Amino acid sequence: MTLPRLALVPGEPAGVGPELCVRLAQRPRTDCTLVTLADPATLQAAATALALPLNLLHEDEPARRPGDLPLRMFPNASTVAFGAPDPRNAGVVVGALLDAAAGCLRGDFAGMVTGPVQKSTINEGGIAYTGTTELLAGHAGRQVVMMLANDIVRVALATTHLPLREVADAIDAGLLRHVLTTTHEALRSDFGIAAPVIAVLGLNPHAGENGHLGHEEIDTIIPLLDALRGEGLALVGPLPADTAFLPNKLTGFDAVVAMYHDQGLPVLKYSGFERAVNLTLGLPYPRVAVDHGTALDLAGRGLADPSSLEAAVATCARIASQRRSRAL
Amino acid sequence: MTLPRLALVPGEPAGVGPELCVRLAQRPRTDCTLVTLADPATLQAAATALALPLNLLHEDEPARRPGDLPLRMFPNASTVAFGAPDPRNAGVVVGALLDAAAGCLRGDFAGMVTGPVQKSTINEGGIAYTGTTELLAGHAGRQVVMMLANDIVRVALATTHLPLREVADAIDAGLLRHVLTTTHEALRSDFGIAAPVIAVLGLNPHAGENGHLGHEEIDTIIPLLDALRGEGLALVGPLPADTAFLPNKLTGFDAVVAMYHDQGLPVLKYSGFERAVNLTLGLPYPRVAVDHGTALDLAGRGLADPSSLEAAVATCARIASQRRSRAL
Repeated sequence: MTLPRLALVPGEPAGVGPELCVRLAQRPRTDCTLVTLADPATLQAAATALALPLNLLHEDEPARRPGDLPLRMFPNASTVAFGAPDPRNAGVVVGALLDAAAGCLRGDFAGMVTGPVQKSTINEGGIAYTGTTELLAGHAGRQVVMMLANDIVRVALATTHLPLREVADAIDAGLLRHVLTTTHEALRSDFGIAAPVIAVLGLNPHAGENGHLGHEEIDTIIPLLDALRGEGLALVGPLPADTAFLPNKLTGFDAVVAMYHDQGLPVLKYSGFERAVNLTLGLPYPRVAVDHGTALDLAGRGLADPSSLEAAVATCARIASQRRSRAL
Repeated sequence: MTLPRLALVPGEPAGVGPELCVRLAQRPRTDCTLVTLADPATLQAAATALALPLNLLHEDEPARRPGDLPLRMFPNASTVAFGAPDPRNAGVVVGALLDAAAGCLRGDFAGMVTGPVQKSTINEGGIAYTGTTELLAGHAGRQVVMMLANDIVRVALATTHLPLREVADAIDAGLLRHVLTTTHEALRSDFGIAAPVIAVLGLNPHAGENGHLGHEEIDTIIPLLDALRGEGLALVGPLPADTAFLPNKLTGFDAVVAMYHDQGLPVLKYSGFERAVNLTLGLPYPRVAVDHGTALDLAGRGLADPSSLEAAVATCARIASQRRSRAL
């Protein structure tokens, strides 16, 4: 059985993405083959800065020795200075992401792993861009769900990057149905959990305390959970967010669905930031990203921790293998 | 130097409060003397249920042996059945809290420790009651701040039990000024931190990301933080809530001020629920409560963990001593 072939897109070339890819290339993989979509000169500059060996290969050549890196070339428009993103390279960054996405859709890749992108630089480059997750969702024509995961907990978000005052109105039955069924299906197809148990947080403190602290649980969340239970989903909640993450409770849940960003992510990041990854559920292919930013202050200095990218590649490889074994 | 004398109010008599007080009485204290304000028959029933010795003493007698418990009697109106709160005892529960509060105000006690109260039962008993914190604030005529603390982090809340959709409008400069100055003063007077550093979370995800994800940071929070910095407070932020709690960041903060309940409390409870306590800042006296509920399903069975009540007493004793040493 051949290993799944994954696309690796480093993201912002002036950030830590290129050097993290070089670090990963120092160790042969047994779970997947990786094709990096990037500028060769930038990777070489990162390797030089880190004093690590790097042998750029054609994308179909196998990596055998430390430093071997199969590459699909996306030459930058402007030479990269680590730490100083250049909007002239925005088109190449987005182009590599879309090429990887197209490759995933046609089966050339079994999944995609992405490094951190500098949102403001892409926009300064004249490209409307709100995030890689949104870019890939639009490209595939899918409504997606963002899930953050580490060794301790998987958290899916009903809403993501929304001002807090808009959250309550955004939570409706249609959205929650999509988020919960997508999360349920992903736990089955991507994580091999036959009958996943999902904890669902309330919107309000104490999950509304029977209507004393808000009505969205009674009006929207509880009826929708009951309907989905009737369709076979195992849902616990709505739970108060402050105690849902207690360690002895978490062990009973395959995922936690939070209603909004700052309700779901603090425990996830506290409990294992370095090993956390960002998954996009609902795409036709697995996509896993690092859970950190471009870290411009560290770029090119050899100080960036490759744990999250390593975890992202391992997670994507595991999901790709899981999907293939289900398809056989 | 005499030990500080603290009032201990067990709270709902049908909950785990009485048995936790009996457990605490098994070990002589070296940090304070405790006077329990409660029904003697209920304490005796809890001791019998747990097969622990209990010797009820007059409140001025010293506890010398395991089981000695100095008591100020508040006889219940109705015999207690553990696990089944009776609204007829609501007046006694509230009466004991108010008597302890009055004792603190006149200097009879150096502080107050409270167990969990069953809010619905108090209301069914015909007493308007939204929480012990609110009761004590009203009694003392003070505006207070709720802080939850464990060994890892102290979290003060700008808003507490408010529906999520009301949070954004509740955050104004007057409230934030009160919360931040009260927290700053408490860290100095109660925790002995000469120059406390307080992390302040943003209201919106990513702390608003320069206005892209909400304007409250730019309109309200940042100008207020700048004004308070000018008055000598050391404030960090507004910080994105998801990464503010990373362990290596927390070590630099004496407290975190969260804008709302479910933003601030998940990490606190995840990182040490058993040892967490609930402090009321801004009262004329120290008040520390357990960070758990009445646990009616456990009451009278000897299964309840006394760690939070033990931590609450130890914290209150430490604060009372700290205040006394500053006053000398």
